[in-house]
Amino acid sequence: MNLFETHRALLDGALQALATRGYWSPFPENASPKVYGETAQADGQAAVQALLGQDYPLQQPGEVGRVAPEQSPYGVDLGVRYPECRPDALIAAARAAEPQWQALGAQGRIGVLLEALTRMHRRSHEITHAVMLTTGQGPMMAFQAGGPHAQDRALEAIAYAWKAMADVPEQALWNKPQGKNPPLVMQKHFDIVGRGVALVIGCATFPTWNTYPGLFAALATGNPVIVKPHPNAVLPAAISISILREVLAEQGLDANLVQLALSLDPAHTQALARDPAVASIDFTGSNEFGRWLQDNARQARLYAEMAGVNTVIIESTDQYAAMLRNLAFTLSLYSGQMCTTTQNILVPKDGIATDEGHKSFEQVGADLAAAVDKLLSDPRVQGAVLGAISAAQTVERIGQAASKGRVLLASRALHHPEYPQARMHSPVMVALTQADYSSYASECFGPVSFVVACDGADGALATAEATLREHGALTLGVYSTDRAWTERSVQLARNTRVALSINLTQGVYVNQSAAFSDYHATGGNPAANASYTTLAFVADRFVVVQRREHVAAPAAA
Amino acid sequence: MNLFETHRALLDGALQALATRGYWSPFPENASPKVYGETAQADGQAAVQALLGQDYPLQQPGEVGRVAPEQSPYGVDLGVRYPECRPDALIAAARAAEPQWQALGAQGRIGVLLEALTRMHRRSHEITHAVMLTTGQGPMMAFQAGGPHAQDRALEAIAYAWKAMADVPEQALWNKPQGKNPPLVMQKHFDIVGRGVALVIGCATFPTWNTYPGLFAALATGNPVIVKPHPNAVLPAAISISILREVLAEQGLDANLVQLALSLDPAHTQALARDPAVASIDFTGSNEFGRWLQDNARQARLYAEMAGVNTVIIESTDQYAAMLRNLAFTLSLYSGQMCTTTQNILVPKDGIATDEGHKSFEQVGADLAAAVDKLLSDPRVQGAVLGAISAAQTVERIGQAASKGRVLLASRALHHPEYPQARMHSPVMVALTQADYSSYASECFGPVSFVVACDGADGALATAEATLREHGALTLGVYSTDRAWTERSVQLARNTRVALSINLTQGVYVNQSAAFSDYHATGGNPAANASYTTLAFVADRFVVVQRREHVAAPAAA
Repeated sequence: MNLFETHRALLDGALQALATRGYWSPFPENASPKVYGETAQADGQAAVQALLGQDYPLQQPGEVGRVAPEQSPYGVDLGVRYPECRPDALIAAARAAEPQWQALGAQGRIGVLLEALTRMHRRSHEITHAVMLTTGQGPMMAFQAGGPHAQDRALEAIAYAWKAMADVPEQALWNKPQGKNPPLVMQKHFDIVGRGVALVIGCATFPTWNTYPGLFAALATGNPVIVKPHPNAVLPAAISISILREVLAEQGLDANLVQLALSLDPAHTQALARDPAVASIDFTGSNEFGRWLQDNARQARLYAEMAGVNTVIIESTDQYAAMLRNLAFTLSLYSGQMCTTTQNILVPKDGIATDEGHKSFEQVGADLAAAVDKLLSDPRVQGAVLGAISAAQTVERIGQAASKGRVLLASRALHHPEYPQARMHSPVMVALTQADYSSYASECFGPVSFVVACDGADGALATAEATLREHGALTLGVYSTDRAWTERSVQLARNTRVALSINLTQGVYVNQSAAFSDYHATGGNPAANASYTTLAFVADRFVVVQRREHVAAPAAA
Repeated sequence: MNLFETHRALLDGALQALATRGYWSPFPENASPKVYGETAQADGQAAVQALLGQDYPLQQPGEVGRVAPEQSPYGVDLGVRYPECRPDALIAAARAAEPQWQALGAQGRIGVLLEALTRMHRRSHEITHAVMLTTGQGPMMAFQAGGPHAQDRALEAIAYAWKAMADVPEQALWNKPQGKNPPLVMQKHFDIVGRGVALVIGCATFPTWNTYPGLFAALATGNPVIVKPHPNAVLPAAISISILREVLAEQGLDANLVQLALSLDPAHTQALARDPAVASIDFTGSNEFGRWLQDNARQARLYAEMAGVNTVIIESTDQYAAMLRNLAFTLSLYSGQMCTTTQNILVPKDGIATDEGHKSFEQVGADLAAAVDKLLSDPRVQGAVLGAISAAQTVERIGQAASKGRVLLASRALHHPEYPQARMHSPVMVALTQADYSSYASECFGPVSFVVACDGADGALATAEATLREHGALTLGVYSTDRAWTERSVQLARNTRVALSINLTQGVYVNQSAAFSDYHATGGNPAANASYTTLAFVADRFVVVQRREHVAAPAAA
């Protein structure tokens, strides 16, 4: 049985789920030994441990030396030494691997990718332990977001790529009547051809979740891929690449179809991005480098996710306590280092109606701060929920944020029970007014939130509209018991093209998006120009090259 | 019955045709009175005649005056005066029309567009007489390419837009099990929202065929459209816009959803293209302005068709006479002013094997010149096939081309039997050698072809590869009786991402592409970055804005 047939049920399940968008996941998010095996966690951790301080086992063309750029937010010595390869050698090897991969056809490619993905799934504990150590995510979140949820997004990209490619018939018989004369008859073939080398640039915080969609979408549609991970979160990408290369080699294919690019010299990435052979770039990261890519890598189609100003508006609620608990978790999870974490919480300055009576603006702020404080009162919860801070600059931003307004909740340096060197800080929450636009209107990445006193619910809508239009967002949340007002927020979400969550008070959080159901980012506002996952994310990664020629027609009359 | 249901069968027919890509067209290309009605042609011509020298009946916001820029290649006085409107007024009106159009939903929009398209079809004789007078196309070609074939391409764009939108479910119930606890249940809605104002920039030679795909794709996916026709071919676009506005108004919708932009000041178009509200630009025209758009209108997604170097390679043939006739027609049709017309004919310098024996390079050139000469020996055929030259610069290029090498066929000024002022010139054909790269490697738009003596069939492949990689092409043709060599040309087509026609000797020409079967341009080489029509042409013209909220779940355990 070929690999496509082996994994056909998995693909069909994904296609079915995407068509209905109810809940579905083939990759269990529960890390339990009952699901993954008794020794799975220990084995995974041991596998990572064995890599630390070593040359990473990866042989690529044009190696000029080894680099070990990773600094664990947990303070763990990593020291994995990855190959640094010449950009031109990587590009040449990618191009050399392309024709064979393209000739494999859509089914052949997707079979190989699904085989690799299921192997990644089996090695979830290993990959996600690497995610945890390099990103600072708490262990459970690292497992879920870095393992099964990232695998879900990969499968989603593969399934969409299949849909887009399956839309093109492989061949057609074209038979055009010519009245009394014999018809014109042509045999036509329609080949799917990738656009060229794809560069996938990862981020420091979600090295698998934000890398897999572009990686698998580009591969499935016939393109060789060069993955340039963030220098602080290389290992999860490296293991994923190794698994892909292993499957390729087993299938007699050129493993250089998927390569790792890494260097301490920024000119290295810039050279890759600007290479004429690079036809697409998937990028998750800063607006600054995103803009550089837009300006300088114009030969490539860019799929970019950058900074945004995620917003929650509280107009009223009939579940005040549950709302506070929900928001407190959102603000705390992974120390607010998710691209979907709420930053601005807009509240009418005269307060809100709740099931616990009227709450003043001050009270809402105080209660929200208390809810965060309470959530994080247990040191074990601190480690599990907050994790560690990925970048030192984020700690600086915490301090800067505190100076912008009235501090509702002060950030404290925390001590991780297992990792004494971990960079841990609790969230800061600052009260502002609608007039403090310059303080809250741009992204302040990390455990920083602003509770903004607005000129009524109308002022809150207007404030949200201004920031969302100017800077975009991945998420917008609203709380309201007034359906007419809620409908206005729905219109706001449409106008600014931001995904909306309404009255989240249970175990779903505005910063979470579930594959096969939620579209992550709309792709229609400044925070991102593409979505996980739509047809638009895959359909322009290949072209159709047709050929036609006459075939035997009836004899002339 | 609503308009969607009225036209459902038409849409379904298109979807079925696109899935199989056999021959299909709902719009008869035969202009015969038996098909279109006894008085259709006379009525259409009279309708155009009534517009000449008049204010065109179109009222749009921000009108500052009237302009009448059209100069007929046939020398007919046109003098239609179109409104010139302020760019900011057009943009504001487009934005104002957007929410209502979006709220109509995919079915509602497509119903309106199919109604307009069928009305355009009923007015084919009128629209295509305007195409003929403004472009210089011969009457039959103007009718077919400007009428039914353009309508086919419009329907194709609508059908693809429908496919891409239908891929998104309107809503979903998401029900996530929580072990012993009650499930998390959410109702989700997925709204399709256009990206924003679409600018569609037409060309001088195919004012409907190259305008309709972008126009209908953008409208169907929820975007208002501003059409900026080429100043020399406004009338076909203006009539098409009027029909759309008429249907919109009848449906109680804002007619300013579709507007005409026209000015004698180039800054006018530039202001439109750079407006932040403009989210997409469809462009057919010169590399120069295409590059300007890429550099300056970076807020917009660009779908561009520009210049290329279309090529035919003759390796050998077993139908020498039929090949010559086929090529002669290709080179002559509309005086080579199709974006798909062959420019370079690559022939081994030592000649080729044919069913009429070996033919030297010189003989092939002489025979091809003679075939063109023979085709055009009848003055009625001249008018019908060549039509008139759209731009005065094209006549200059004919003269320049003749100076580049040995003239195989000299261009002559011709006299049109019906239009004494018509700008008519027969094709020029020039022999070059492979070394004359700079002479043949860039586009020389118009009735100009180069027969290039190459270093064998290998040299021809290498020459084609060089020009196709550097400048791209919409079409590549090959003639060969050697399947191994033909397979190499198939690989060349894949590598350079150019559509390939093999051994065309019957009534299909390399410069023709049939909607519902042939993809026009691959979108994967420098001549065009998009194709008529693929999912990629439509899927990124809208985004999905979702909203989610909890709905009644089972009571907590």
